[in-house]
Amino acid sequence: MSKNLTKRSEDYSKWYNELVVKADLAENSAVKGCMVIKPYGYAIWEKMQAELDRMFKETGHQNAYFPLFIPKSFFSKEASHVDGFAKECAVVTHYRLRTAADGKTIEVDPDAKLEEELIVRPTSETIIWNTYKGWIQSYRDLPLLINQWANVVRWEMRTRLFLRTAEFLWQEGHTAHATQTEAIAEAEQMVNVYAEFAENFMAIPVIKGIKTENERFAGAVETYCIEALMQDGKALQAGTSHFLGQNFAKAFDVKFANKEGKQDYVWATSWGVSTRLMGALVMTHSDDNGLVLPPNLAPIQVVIVPIYKGDEQFDAISVEAKQLMARLRKLGISVKYDDRDTHKPGFKFNEYELKGVPLRVAIGPNDLANGTFEVARRDTLTKETVISADIVTYIQDMLEQIQQNLFTKALDFRNSHITEVNTFEEFKDVLSNKTGFVSAHWDGTTATEEKIKELTKATIRCIALDRVEEAGTCVFTGAPSQGRVLFAKAY
Amino acid sequence: MSKNLTKRSEDYSKWYNELVVKADLAENSAVKGCMVIKPYGYAIWEKMQAELDRMFKETGHQNAYFPLFIPKSFFSKEASHVDGFAKECAVVTHYRLRTAADGKTIEVDPDAKLEEELIVRPTSETIIWNTYKGWIQSYRDLPLLINQWANVVRWEMRTRLFLRTAEFLWQEGHTAHATQTEAIAEAEQMVNVYAEFAENFMAIPVIKGIKTENERFAGAVETYCIEALMQDGKALQAGTSHFLGQNFAKAFDVKFANKEGKQDYVWATSWGVSTRLMGALVMTHSDDNGLVLPPNLAPIQVVIVPIYKGDEQFDAISVEAKQLMARLRKLGISVKYDDRDTHKPGFKFNEYELKGVPLRVAIGPNDLANGTFEVARRDTLTKETVISADIVTYIQDMLEQIQQNLFTKALDFRNSHITEVNTFEEFKDVLSNKTGFVSAHWDGTTATEEKIKELTKATIRCIALDRVEEAGTCVFTGAPSQGRVLFAKAY
Repeated sequence: MSKNLTKRSEDYSKWYNELVVKADLAENSAVKGCMVIKPYGYAIWEKMQAELDRMFKETGHQNAYFPLFIPKSFFSKEASHVDGFAKECAVVTHYRLRTAADGKTIEVDPDAKLEEELIVRPTSETIIWNTYKGWIQSYRDLPLLINQWANVVRWEMRTRLFLRTAEFLWQEGHTAHATQTEAIAEAEQMVNVYAEFAENFMAIPVIKGIKTENERFAGAVETYCIEALMQDGKALQAGTSHFLGQNFAKAFDVKFANKEGKQDYVWATSWGVSTRLMGALVMTHSDDNGLVLPPNLAPIQVVIVPIYKGDEQFDAISVEAKQLMARLRKLGISVKYDDRDTHKPGFKFNEYELKGVPLRVAIGPNDLANGTFEVARRDTLTKETVISADIVTYIQDMLEQIQQNLFTKALDFRNSHITEVNTFEEFKDVLSNKTGFVSAHWDGTTATEEKIKELTKATIRCIALDRVEEAGTCVFTGAPSQGRVLFAKAY
Repeated sequence: MSKNLTKRSEDYSKWYNELVVKADLAENSAVKGCMVIKPYGYAIWEKMQAELDRMFKETGHQNAYFPLFIPKSFFSKEASHVDGFAKECAVVTHYRLRTAADGKTIEVDPDAKLEEELIVRPTSETIIWNTYKGWIQSYRDLPLLINQWANVVRWEMRTRLFLRTAEFLWQEGHTAHATQTEAIAEAEQMVNVYAEFAENFMAIPVIKGIKTENERFAGAVETYCIEALMQDGKALQAGTSHFLGQNFAKAFDVKFANKEGKQDYVWATSWGVSTRLMGALVMTHSDDNGLVLPPNLAPIQVVIVPIYKGDEQFDAISVEAKQLMARLRKLGISVKYDDRDTHKPGFKFNEYELKGVPLRVAIGPNDLANGTFEVARRDTLTKETVISADIVTYIQDMLEQIQQNLFTKALDFRNSHITEVNTFEEFKDVLSNKTGFVSAHWDGTTATEEKIKELTKATIRCIALDRVEEAGTCVFTGAPSQGRVLFAKAY
């Protein structure tokens, strides 16, 4: 198959859009802004879900499911939340259709108007805290550690597959605690879970930090985040975890009796990651030949392609291929033997390169004669001939190496794209050339942050959790600063 | 804890509603007709999902995800589908809210009206077949075997938790085939998968059959179903699989080139089960003391409760409990050790009875002295004392026995509630007394079927796949019939 993929250096954005479609990850649907996640893309998402779900359960969380619809009035209850979320969203106003006068088309039945409009959830804090009111009476009911896997809708005008879609899939954790300390510890724990998942599982290095007031989640007291860097030098927020204080408990009147019998409002967190991670995955590792998938997330880790002339060779090669497949599957490695006779090996090589399969094993007549396999790595595009006795161990080790190599490569890239600047000239210079993160002193005001954004399109991605306190002067205003923050252009 | 559960014999319907809420499975939400699935209920649904998903993948299916919204016009494309599905549903007409003149409440922004209204999917045939048009060109693209796990919305006026809710969770398979034969084989395969799942995993005996024209899915040529019998003698449709012919391919113009290069419309199936299965589970096995869960679906299979006075006894018992827990977990058995000191053993016994935990192990001072455990079965409410050396094998065997026993018990009940009748007097008599399935001759017309429904509230649940051809006369009209069909009142 011919790939005809735009090069990253030509047009990074076009490369991304083409790759997502050509590698069968997703496509646009007939509904504006909504995507179809295709089986190959969904298989990767399922692997992310399985691992995250395991990590959530290991940290004591349970899953539940709350309604898709939220009564409109709920959004008015938390003042800052309404500004952030109750604006661009899908509104259900009617509950019935009828056949039109032409007897053929259908139309909304004007008699079936809802008394109160329903909003398709853009996030579920309001409906969940309204429910928690019935679940929490005493400190014995706390902590409540719940997660939901769901679809949400935010009416975006400009959408891009995975990165920004009207409907997307995500998980949202919503926890309730007896004390502020415990809630903060939970919010911090979850940003750590996300970072561990991104780095160890997706091979994406991330910076853990907190958001400035301006970039905070609507209704949060503190927003923790993980920020990744894409190959074009733009940052991508890959997950957030919010300490919500008592804001939602107050908005929905959720009180509990503490051990001393006194009534107090409950402390809250919420945290989420979404199918946006699929975009981060593509933009961190892939290249001009197509997807590059970390072995941990690859639906097919090893593909075996036979190279043969005539049935006799095919049969002999198939025996070898099937034996290898069986041995690898026993180790939990996912293998596909592509024995289609409708496509040539070259076509198949291209296809699996495009789809990012980490290892490709080819078996030809010479291999058969010599007892060898030709193994090609997707990440480095290099090949090696491996003897039969070593093949299983080789593949096992190589999958680990590829996982590690992708992380190291992305980490080196990220680290070489964090630039410390001390003047606004340098600041602008980095953003117009090298791009990446700019580490600069900032005076702590929203006014400065917004002015910088206006001039450079860069926002403060985060105040890194591990930043060193360092006296300095704001790169823009010259006012005193306690430490550097990370700016970048972002997705 | 006190259960205060209405008895089934007093008011079956009330018993069900109370049990679902008291056992922490689900509750009604602030949104009319939409439920909250609570963590304990969701954990059971997750077990169903995992097993079904495994079975779907084993039969060659892949998961994907399609949009929540469907353009209104799509429903006009398949004539019979529109009547069945495009009526009672949630309609999105606007995409923005704004702050009202009072500066506080929010209202729909009249300037943000959609050009074409969007319907929240009641089922996804239309949007999926519109997508398949782009995926299918040649016989090489077939079969397409895809499943989706999703939420759907049907605006029901009278709702009941799990059994009938406005929003529910389900899976919907949508497959495309080159030939009619292959599509029919797929539809039959999936009804068999559902039957196997219901019987082996949920311990619910089912009758496999086909629906009459009147009861068929809107847009289907043939609807296969599995029908179960609840303890009150009412039937419940637990899953359906549809052979859709070329109806949706024609409606959405999905053609393919066959091996000879000729264009033909694609053949289709769709099949689904939903959170309704949770209702079937509750109503098949549970009793006046609460839930009874088959071990295969129980989130907690074994609970250990310590009975002690003072810390010393507690510590000694905990050593035993933790050892047992570790040994059982190694075998993949899910165990909880309830060492809460805030609740008495009697309270705990009641709680786990209500929640249907299959086995309860109590350890008291005498057990400690004698090296024994007291094991209580939830299904039979019987107890046995088991010596330490035998305990692990005993529990393992007992879990299998309980699973088997629940199925046998339900099967006996079901079989003793199928009554063959030959006159309409007998027919009415059975339905007013014993209830259950009535096996009767029917003349094959919709008119008779509807008349019988009007008079008795019974519908034809299915024509069993294994029914014996038998000449007879319709129980209502006396017209000739080729075999018996199964009538029942149904959920």
